[in-house]
Amino acid sequence: MGPLLRTVELFYDVLSPYSWLGFEVLCRYQNIWNINLQLRPSLIGGIMKDSGNKPPGLLPRKGQYMANDIKLLRHHFQIPIQFPKDFFSVIIEKGSLSAMRFLTAVSLEHPEMLEKASRELWMRVWSRVSVGLWESSGRTFDDFLTFPRNVFRVMILPSPLPQRIYCPPVTPLSFDEDITQPQSILAAAEKAGMSAEQAQGLLEKISTPKVKNQLKETTEAACRYGAFGLPITVAHVDGQTHMIFGSDRMELLAFLLGEKWMGPVPPAVNARL
Amino acid sequence: MGPLLRTVELFYDVLSPYSWLGFEVLCRYQNIWNINLQLRPSLIGGIMKDSGNKPPGLLPRKGQYMANDIKLLRHHFQIPIQFPKDFFSVIIEKGSLSAMRFLTAVSLEHPEMLEKASRELWMRVWSRVSVGLWESSGRTFDDFLTFPRNVFRVMILPSPLPQRIYCPPVTPLSFDEDITQPQSILAAAEKAGMSAEQAQGLLEKISTPKVKNQLKETTEAACRYGAFGLPITVAHVDGQTHMIFGSDRMELLAFLLGEKWMGPVPPAVNARL
Repeated sequence: MGPLLRTVELFYDVLSPYSWLGFEVLCRYQNIWNINLQLRPSLIGGIMKDSGNKPPGLLPRKGQYMANDIKLLRHHFQIPIQFPKDFFSVIIEKGSLSAMRFLTAVSLEHPEMLEKASRELWMRVWSRVSVGLWESSGRTFDDFLTFPRNVFRVMILPSPLPQRIYCPPVTPLSFDEDITQPQSILAAAEKAGMSAEQAQGLLEKISTPKVKNQLKETTEAACRYGAFGLPITVAHVDGQTHMIFGSDRMELLAFLLGEKWMGPVPPAVNARL
Repeated sequence: MGPLLRTVELFYDVLSPYSWLGFEVLCRYQNIWNINLQLRPSLIGGIMKDSGNKPPGLLPRKGQYMANDIKLLRHHFQIPIQFPKDFFSVIIEKGSLSAMRFLTAVSLEHPEMLEKASRELWMRVWSRVSVGLWESSGRTFDDFLTFPRNVFRVMILPSPLPQRIYCPPVTPLSFDEDITQPQSILAAAEKAGMSAEQAQGLLEKISTPKVKNQLKETTEAACRYGAFGLPITVAHVDGQTHMIFGSDRMELLAFLLGEKWMGPVPPAVNARL
């Protein structure tokens, strides 16, 4: 590690699955690499509009690829991510404005809660969606990964993967959780460790000009860095600024920082799991 | 290494810069991992048309990102890749039909020459394009990487990168090399080690139904695997087929194969450079 703490900003939206992957990898490395990680809640809808880009899922073949890709990356990254049952309704139609305003309020008032609150919103929209798999045939690796309600409970499995692992049967949980309604956001906040009063207080702030403007400004900042989607990671290294798109350039980020890449699950995290 | 040799197919087009990155990484790992690498020359234009996708460079902000991304990946991957001076003319207008038919003829008649011939075509279109940088101020790392005419001559440099490295001055080379004209393809073939007669003989085959149909069939196969761009890597592992898009999923490929990922420049290659 060099003596200088480098700032790494992650611009993300909880609607974006690759944002979640990038987020978890950077959260894992924030105490391993010599970096100051700054989480920047942004609005993916605003970035798509400003750049003229379209969500990849709208091209059928890209959507199909993305579903498979996420299934493979879930194992590789050890993050219990999976496609919403009703992708178009959840991701394209409903959007994330309230959720990202809530996270913006958290970043302003209780930044120490931002990581956990963000994760709990992703858990709602991109994880607890098809637990019915538990009722399907067998106890496969796929089934196993639908279970954890928190990424830090995911087990490390031997490589190559065994096709079947014994897991005790569990009661199926609800699925297709919402992130647009007040009670959904409050539920995520409480799961993240906030008191009901604290969560309610923050929720009331999402319609204030301060919060609205902050989310707008952060989204505009991402656009100025050249974003056409999320996540983007902006690394400030030796007077230079590098913008990296997606969750698959973290090894390149390590290279730019002069830090060691140890895969999406570095040993220190591995030991904690 | 397991006892079973797994087949890994790389579908690529020399117009695609990320195909080049994926190609070099797989060529480097083909003797390290327990794989049988099969190179599949394909036509990116056909895949774009069939999938309804558009080249990323057409969206201005994506094009700008791609130029920066390639500049960073060139260092990280140690491949002397850089943007053509006239991207739209070279990549969008001229296309790669003759070049990819030529590589198809090579794959049918002299498969042992396919790796080198492919590389020499990439060197023309995606590398020897801005050697004028040598005349710019100083001898920077950027300048250094424009020099090598062959990827295996790129030096390993200490990390973090020094800002300036001394290199002796050299005579600027030509730039914006073509891959559409017969003499361009012949020049690449000869650089790859073919005799003039051998190269001429293969060039004559590019208008035969056998070669045309083979390129069409390979491109269609890529589409059946779900391609909406190139490169795609198709791994056949334990009776399952995984399709991976782009050059940034090679660590995931290692995970699927149960092999060790050692970065885009594995130590065995590092020692040879």
